[in-house]
Amino acid sequence: MTAAAALNDHLRQISAMGRVAGLLGWDMETQMPRRGAAQRAEEAGAVARALHALEVDPALAEAADAAEAAGADPVTAVQVAEARRIHGRATRVPAALAAALAATTAEAQTIWEQARAARRFADFAPALDRVLRLKRDEAECLAREAVDGYDALLDEHEPGMTAAAAAGLFAALRPGLVELRARLTDGGGAAPRLEGHFPKEQQIALSRRIAGALGYDWEAGRIDLAVHPSCSGTFGDVRITTRIDEADPLGSIYSTIHEVGHALYEQGLDPETGLTPAGQFASMGVHESQSRLYENQIGRSRAFAEWLYPLLVETFGPLSLDSPDALFRAVNRVETGFIRTEADEVHYNLHIMLRFDLERALIAGDLDVDGLEAAWNDRFEADFGIRPPDAAMGVLQDVHWSVGAFGYFPTYTFGNVYAATLDAALRTDVPDLDSRVATGDFAPALAWLRPRIHRRGRMLPPARLIAEAAGREARPEALVAALKAKFEPLYRP
Amino acid sequence: MTAAAALNDHLRQISAMGRVAGLLGWDMETQMPRRGAAQRAEEAGAVARALHALEVDPALAEAADAAEAAGADPVTAVQVAEARRIHGRATRVPAALAAALAATTAEAQTIWEQARAARRFADFAPALDRVLRLKRDEAECLAREAVDGYDALLDEHEPGMTAAAAAGLFAALRPGLVELRARLTDGGGAAPRLEGHFPKEQQIALSRRIAGALGYDWEAGRIDLAVHPSCSGTFGDVRITTRIDEADPLGSIYSTIHEVGHALYEQGLDPETGLTPAGQFASMGVHESQSRLYENQIGRSRAFAEWLYPLLVETFGPLSLDSPDALFRAVNRVETGFIRTEADEVHYNLHIMLRFDLERALIAGDLDVDGLEAAWNDRFEADFGIRPPDAAMGVLQDVHWSVGAFGYFPTYTFGNVYAATLDAALRTDVPDLDSRVATGDFAPALAWLRPRIHRRGRMLPPARLIAEAAGREARPEALVAALKAKFEPLYRP
Repeated sequence: MTAAAALNDHLRQISAMGRVAGLLGWDMETQMPRRGAAQRAEEAGAVARALHALEVDPALAEAADAAEAAGADPVTAVQVAEARRIHGRATRVPAALAAALAATTAEAQTIWEQARAARRFADFAPALDRVLRLKRDEAECLAREAVDGYDALLDEHEPGMTAAAAAGLFAALRPGLVELRARLTDGGGAAPRLEGHFPKEQQIALSRRIAGALGYDWEAGRIDLAVHPSCSGTFGDVRITTRIDEADPLGSIYSTIHEVGHALYEQGLDPETGLTPAGQFASMGVHESQSRLYENQIGRSRAFAEWLYPLLVETFGPLSLDSPDALFRAVNRVETGFIRTEADEVHYNLHIMLRFDLERALIAGDLDVDGLEAAWNDRFEADFGIRPPDAAMGVLQDVHWSVGAFGYFPTYTFGNVYAATLDAALRTDVPDLDSRVATGDFAPALAWLRPRIHRRGRMLPPARLIAEAAGREARPEALVAALKAKFEPLYRP
Repeated sequence: MTAAAALNDHLRQISAMGRVAGLLGWDMETQMPRRGAAQRAEEAGAVARALHALEVDPALAEAADAAEAAGADPVTAVQVAEARRIHGRATRVPAALAAALAATTAEAQTIWEQARAARRFADFAPALDRVLRLKRDEAECLAREAVDGYDALLDEHEPGMTAAAAAGLFAALRPGLVELRARLTDGGGAAPRLEGHFPKEQQIALSRRIAGALGYDWEAGRIDLAVHPSCSGTFGDVRITTRIDEADPLGSIYSTIHEVGHALYEQGLDPETGLTPAGQFASMGVHESQSRLYENQIGRSRAFAEWLYPLLVETFGPLSLDSPDALFRAVNRVETGFIRTEADEVHYNLHIMLRFDLERALIAGDLDVDGLEAAWNDRFEADFGIRPPDAAMGVLQDVHWSVGAFGYFPTYTFGNVYAATLDAALRTDVPDLDSRVATGDFAPALAWLRPRIHRRGRMLPPARLIAEAAGREARPEALVAALKAKFEPLYRP
């Protein structure tokens, strides 16, 4: 076996064990009987330990060195870098800290669920404090010279990104969004709503139909119901979950489109390298760009509404919306709200900036958990003009911090900026995109994304990947410009 | 941590990783999209390697020694013995041989499927030969002094059982079965058949209803459709699969009852030890005794037919069978056939004896693969009076040898003998069992089995466990006597 093949073999095992962990999670959300929870925790723990053992194995570092010494081709060079990243991360975090993090976040997630149901931040604060202290320790272990703790956490999700660069991106994005938001919300009441009763089975059938039209490969995936929408798995086995609200089919439809965007990325990885680090998704930000491009740039376009409207009528009968234009307006309602996951395109990134600033302060020690709820509410009121009525509508709304996912939130905005950048280039290269979308032909979009993003895996750093795909750097100003171009005409009196 | 607790912890990890492997298999049969197969093989391989690493870990042997030295309580004494069995087995088989077996059997199973479809043994023979040679090597590694190779393979499935003891049991069983078969098959044509069209959804609903009535805990399990009926998982998560033939609801019903018998065992394990070796099922023979007891001794009783008949009418409308008695006769049809899994109670164990003798000869080197098909057909004709028309009806019908499961077949007959023994004792202790069963009350049977079998785990060797539960040794003659008592009146002119 060549050195490169030996390295590849070890990395494939790591990827495989990671997929097993993912499958346990999917099964837990969709299939597992209630009484299986306790033993499932032991199963997940055993898999996590086995994965860690593969990552800390000195043979991995040796294989990387040997492959490099043998003169690495470009793919192997990326495998070497990824192997060192994986091995370095696993060895720099002591086993005791990793175990404490796993146990503490598992417990904290349960406590968070209960606290959110009770709408009391105080119930969650001690658990969050334990998580935060461990994450600070982890960040310190991960950070190398010239990299502060938050950078190290951010780098886990968006390789190469720094807090300073993210702050710069947010600073460039913010004024335009604030200004646009102030003008648009005045007219928010004008957008119509889709009202009625929409039976579950018909919603599921419609979601499946839309997923198929977008290019989702049913031989390499499946859709199930779960409490939270998600996309898990990779390449030949990419599973989506969705949830149904019988009063709101658009919620399920757009959540499915979002997850299909993620799934198309995973299904489209390079067959040769897709099950190894070099062939996997480039970053969480790039992943989010795929889901957002389908959900927003394509899914919330006027052309898409023209395609979707008759499908809705065919599925549910006469609608409370009288035209594709009314549907287009309904799915582009701009409205100030407390909940990030329900936010429109104009508000969404303001939610992210709030979390970014707060979690940076938490990791740096400039803000402590006791002060978090007040800090959240003050900032929310300053940015959105309304104050959360309780913690469930505010600081308790997201699961992320309970599971220790600090440094994750910014990737949502990176994704939105990347998506706007890709969309502009896609429309330049495919001038008739809208007329194709209006007839339900989504093949040109997928054909454009596959070679430029999906099949390139992790061969380039995220920002480079987007820039090469789009033929231009991703710039936050482009997102603002696109939002203005779309929303201002909608709100013109 | 005490020495016993450290041992327990290591054993729980092994059990957990084993459950993960089982879940991957279940998912593959019931949920996985088609294109997930290739990567699933890598996932199963990674889990198998992780399991092997836990088993060969010297810390396991050290923990067993330390726990023993600390003065083991009865449960810990069994954990020590099981730990040594697991560790010894894993360390005695070289890693290269274990890997070759895994790869060769995976390949051979696919080849077997194709050969069976083509009905050509020659297509499968080279693959079987490769498996056989590896299994002989494995048996040699596993065997210790005074234990021949087949004994070592048998011991994997039925701890403590030897080929000589199994041969003795078969010799005691055979004359009575041969004699009964000869008399009964003359009258086989008298049994009526259930004919008609039985829609899938109604069959599934009925299977679920029957499973629930038998005591299957829906909070600790689920039923899905698959190509092959199975029961996987343990304790709080025990999953059953079934298959549906719309021309034959009794096939699905009795297959479900069989799997529910397995599932009740797993769901009823001791909550303290059920997820460790000491608390797991005692042997494959004991497992089969639970499925057979429900399928045959209870499920094919006259009382059960009285309960089931109105359920069938309620589910499917008027039947081609005019009474519970006709149903009782239909599910007890005795008929010579080629396929083991379709065999009635009278013929079933003759199928097993044939396989036992052939596989012993294969492992011993007294029979080679080239001579196997002829040996099968000759023996079949001698025992059953008919000759298999092709290999699919003969030597290719079972998956077992392709996956290397030599030494497994005998456990089916052990299960049948154990089931007859347990049933006799159950009926002594619960004199009104039949009248309870006739009203759909299966609680007394489960209440009897739970403390005597399910909760005792592996605390006793299989034969001891059955003897203590039944208050008498398991004897093959008792099975023959029970079959005579049931079938002779049915065939009286």
